[in-house]
Amino acid sequence: MKQSISVVTVAVDDLKRSRTFYSDRLGWTPLMDLDDIVFYQVGFGLVFAIWALKDLSDDVGHAIARGSAFSLGHNVESPQEVDAVIARARAAGAGILKEPQPAPLFDGYQGYFSDPDGHLWDIVYNPGLSVARDGSVVFGSSD
Amino acid sequence: MKQSISVVTVAVDDLKRSRTFYSDRLGWTPLMDLDDIVFYQVGFGLVFAIWALKDLSDDVGHAIARGSAFSLGHNVESPQEVDAVIARARAAGAGILKEPQPAPLFDGYQGYFSDPDGHLWDIVYNPGLSVARDGSVVFGSSD
Repeated sequence: MKQSISVVTVAVDDLKRSRTFYSDRLGWTPLMDLDDIVFYQVGFGLVFAIWALKDLSDDVGHAIARGSAFSLGHNVESPQEVDAVIARARAAGAGILKEPQPAPLFDGYQGYFSDPDGHLWDIVYNPGLSVARDGSVVFGSSD
Repeated sequence: MKQSISVVTVAVDDLKRSRTFYSDRLGWTPLMDLDDIVFYQVGFGLVFAIWALKDLSDDVGHAIARGSAFSLGHNVESPQEVDAVIARARAAGAGILKEPQPAPLFDGYQGYFSDPDGHLWDIVYNPGLSVARDGSVVFGSSD
């Protein structure tokens, strides 16, 4: 199996509420906005989708339970940008689970917010993670 | 807020079990394999991480409950490749939640498996989704 993720789909209780959160309040532009699913481009060849829990369950053929034992990392270029994203999320009505603060674990700076369904976004300034021109992720100090 | 995901982290009950599943059984090569977290590159500038639920909870500063109300889409080039990935996942001990089958919703072909923690992988052949040279995702028939 190749190592690849093309689409990250989060299941939501109320698609209208989630659409308002991502499109209107966070200001994201949909790649495709349909009655029952909304797609956003979130990286090179990468799509983020919001879809009703019932629809995901129907597609899988099994009832999917609520729960968010995962986080979506959104890396930015500076601590100030972490502050700005968390401020924007707060204004959008997100829950702020971790106020922006130094992250000793990777010598960076970080905050967490949760979307209307409790899905976690980890807003990160990590000076030890960079992406090369060919898309390779490089860990290690950028010194 | 920019539209971007840099890292997808899934919380796991037993890191050793998950490492065995992804690294040994699915055959993925870690980008970085540490005692308490494993990173895999899964796209252009994109990282997938497995991390203990307790560690994620500690990082967030709130107890994160189990649950997998999300799916990770793994797009491939043909129905045969869907069959092959699901067969590989089955051999790796994954739960097969949906056997490979035609997906009328997008005129493609699809199967779902779940990893040791129940996290969903959606293995998809979607002839109506392509990625342009600059990374833009294009929906619409490739005819």
